[in-house]
Amino acid sequence: MTQNERFVETYRELLRFRTISAEHREIRETAHFLRDLLISNGFSADVLETDGHPVVSGNLNLGKKRTLLVYNHYDVQPVDPVDEWNSDPFSAEIRDGRIYARGASDNKGTLVARLFGMINAIKSGKINVNLKIIYEGEEEIGNPSLEKFVNRNRELLSSDAVIMEGSTLGEDGRPIVSLGVKGLVYAQLEEEIADSDMHSSFASIAPNAAWNLVKHLSALYEKDSVLLPGFYESIKPLSPEEERLLEDYPFHEETFKESFGLKYLKHEGRDSLVRSLFCSPTFNIDGIYSGYAGEGSKTVTPRKASAKVDFRLVPDQDPEKVYHSFMDALRKNGFKGTINHLGLEYPVRTSVNSMISRAMIESAKNVYKKEPIVMINSPGTQPMALFTRNLGIKEAVSAIGVGDNKSRAHAPNESVSVDNFLLSIRHTEKFLEIFR
Amino acid sequence: MTQNERFVETYRELLRFRTISAEHREIRETAHFLRDLLISNGFSADVLETDGHPVVSGNLNLGKKRTLLVYNHYDVQPVDPVDEWNSDPFSAEIRDGRIYARGASDNKGTLVARLFGMINAIKSGKINVNLKIIYEGEEEIGNPSLEKFVNRNRELLSSDAVIMEGSTLGEDGRPIVSLGVKGLVYAQLEEEIADSDMHSSFASIAPNAAWNLVKHLSALYEKDSVLLPGFYESIKPLSPEEERLLEDYPFHEETFKESFGLKYLKHEGRDSLVRSLFCSPTFNIDGIYSGYAGEGSKTVTPRKASAKVDFRLVPDQDPEKVYHSFMDALRKNGFKGTINHLGLEYPVRTSVNSMISRAMIESAKNVYKKEPIVMINSPGTQPMALFTRNLGIKEAVSAIGVGDNKSRAHAPNESVSVDNFLLSIRHTEKFLEIFR
Repeated sequence: MTQNERFVETYRELLRFRTISAEHREIRETAHFLRDLLISNGFSADVLETDGHPVVSGNLNLGKKRTLLVYNHYDVQPVDPVDEWNSDPFSAEIRDGRIYARGASDNKGTLVARLFGMINAIKSGKINVNLKIIYEGEEEIGNPSLEKFVNRNRELLSSDAVIMEGSTLGEDGRPIVSLGVKGLVYAQLEEEIADSDMHSSFASIAPNAAWNLVKHLSALYEKDSVLLPGFYESIKPLSPEEERLLEDYPFHEETFKESFGLKYLKHEGRDSLVRSLFCSPTFNIDGIYSGYAGEGSKTVTPRKASAKVDFRLVPDQDPEKVYHSFMDALRKNGFKGTINHLGLEYPVRTSVNSMISRAMIESAKNVYKKEPIVMINSPGTQPMALFTRNLGIKEAVSAIGVGDNKSRAHAPNESVSVDNFLLSIRHTEKFLEIFR
Repeated sequence: MTQNERFVETYRELLRFRTISAEHREIRETAHFLRDLLISNGFSADVLETDGHPVVSGNLNLGKKRTLLVYNHYDVQPVDPVDEWNSDPFSAEIRDGRIYARGASDNKGTLVARLFGMINAIKSGKINVNLKIIYEGEEEIGNPSLEKFVNRNRELLSSDAVIMEGSTLGEDGRPIVSLGVKGLVYAQLEEEIADSDMHSSFASIAPNAAWNLVKHLSALYEKDSVLLPGFYESIKPLSPEEERLLEDYPFHEETFKESFGLKYLKHEGRDSLVRSLFCSPTFNIDGIYSGYAGEGSKTVTPRKASAKVDFRLVPDQDPEKVYHSFMDALRKNGFKGTINHLGLEYPVRTSVNSMISRAMIESAKNVYKKEPIVMINSPGTQPMALFTRNLGIKEAVSAIGVGDNKSRAHAPNESVSVDNFLLSIRHTEKFLEIFR
């Protein structure tokens, strides 16, 4: 068996654990497997308790000046609808050069590919940093214990740079390197104005919870602008290099629309759309619901209304300030219901001139023989700021991922090409050769 | 058996039919029973087909100058939750002077009480009008066939005045006389902007169906005012007599709030609340729903949003004009979704000086020995305009009803006091003595 064959077999072994975090399945078995894998490759490693599923930590001090932290998660999404799978989601069957399994792409494949890349680099001696590892077991259920764990383990995790997950191969098989994330405020509003719905013949004297919510939301958003005081003030301008990354970003208006069957976009023109995608903060209604939702007509003045909303934020907007100014504005306008946040995440944008950005871009070019797609920050969110902000790690990127546009993360028949898996190992190795 | 005992027994016989229109049960049996009851009391009568359940029509030409039409419905609501009934909903059990059955109050009790009052009046000869009767079998499912039936049977139904149903005894056992109804526009909006929901990281470039709907609704309603051109222009001012009826109307702010557990009302002050209740048109959201409605956070940009809204209208607002101006305003503001109406009803207000109003108020005082509660129009809606507008009947009221504040129409243990049943018979008789 070649070394690559052994890597693939270990990958499949990991995929056979049914590590569904939402169902609390085989969590500890997977964590112990990973700890043992780290130890057998020369790392010191531990399974560390959190308030939820344990974290696997690894450490390899090579006596270098700087330390790199690698974050992955070992839990996976549920497999429903299981009927749509062509093979058992935990059999890790290989067909036509692809490995089919829940977690093949998100995130077990990336986890082991990076580990094998590190092992190769250690063996060859072409590595210039110490290594730290954190494997989380609750990413697919929203990282409920991660912040507390990070805050309580500052020394253990202390590093100079961090690689997060979430990257894949993009258009034309070009690897995606994302230099940050948008921030997030996720909030929930609810107002109850009565014990029962009222017949709408009373609508002239009884308040209507649906109208209250509609008017309160509407008052804070006009012509695609968020009407919160100071909302746009702390947005950081782009550097000339970042402007160039926007120009180079491959975006096709029609392809994007087709992918969702979208009838139209908010505005037109590639440049303006790309700028919005990466640089515009948003105020999004995720859900709104009140009153009668059945067939036909029922005349009712609803007693209760709820909405879920999210703000995506860009550097250097502050989610805590945004949340408080949102609450203040609602209260000032007379909203009497409850306001809760279910999540606050800070935006991150690492300089394209940082060591980690340059090493990641150069190694991607070298391994894939293609220009990587470099995003100034992801349009989405992940808890990158827990590492940069809470731990003070200066450099953070999302890059090196085994998935491609056929990988179907979170869906039936998730898969990864064996070739891409091996390229990710090589990419990690090359990155470690350059990064110092 | 006294005559009153015979009336009660016939009432109970009618209640034993399980005439649930939503379930299409025992419709024809009930219709035939009523036709036979009319015929055996000297009316000519027929069971007439409609597009849905049949109408029972009755006619008694006494050679008088004017003709009175009496409208009732013979169908009833479903009995769920059946476990909460203390006796079989179709056994018509009498306990402590009350008859318990589905339909006891709404509307079989009122139907037969009026008929028995007519029979008494005919026998005594104290009657000055010809009589026409229409018993509908689809009131509890929204009168889907009534308008077409009315339009096709103008000659059969042609009359000078009409008594509708919907009246009960109000506060302190005072009979309610309602001189009209508010009109209604019930409309449904829906917009689909994509084939699938989008991850909210695309919210900066993808439109959001929830936001679209919130902004479009909000644009047409501000500070409790409906922002449709001309909406308030055709509202008829009140006469001094109608103003006095508002002053006399018994309304208690705190009692109203308690009845729904309402935390507050739209405004304060008895006079202003009563005026709003009867004279203010409304724009009500009955339901709004879009996007994620589950627990916790899911970041989604919804592809679809729907709302149901109703406008309550007062004389002489025109529901067709309001509906068209609503559609026009939405289109002008850029709403691209579907707009449908599920119902248009014209408002009605009969003069308090009309013969029918005066006879109804005077007979109520005489029989109940109490001042009736006279409403210039009900805050709610019923298809009174089918008779006034489509048939050209000049005078219409809702009055004479067997229910009281314990009757629980549409709920388990619906009941009517035998005494109130007999008073309604007497009220009808007295009304016919005065009305000409």
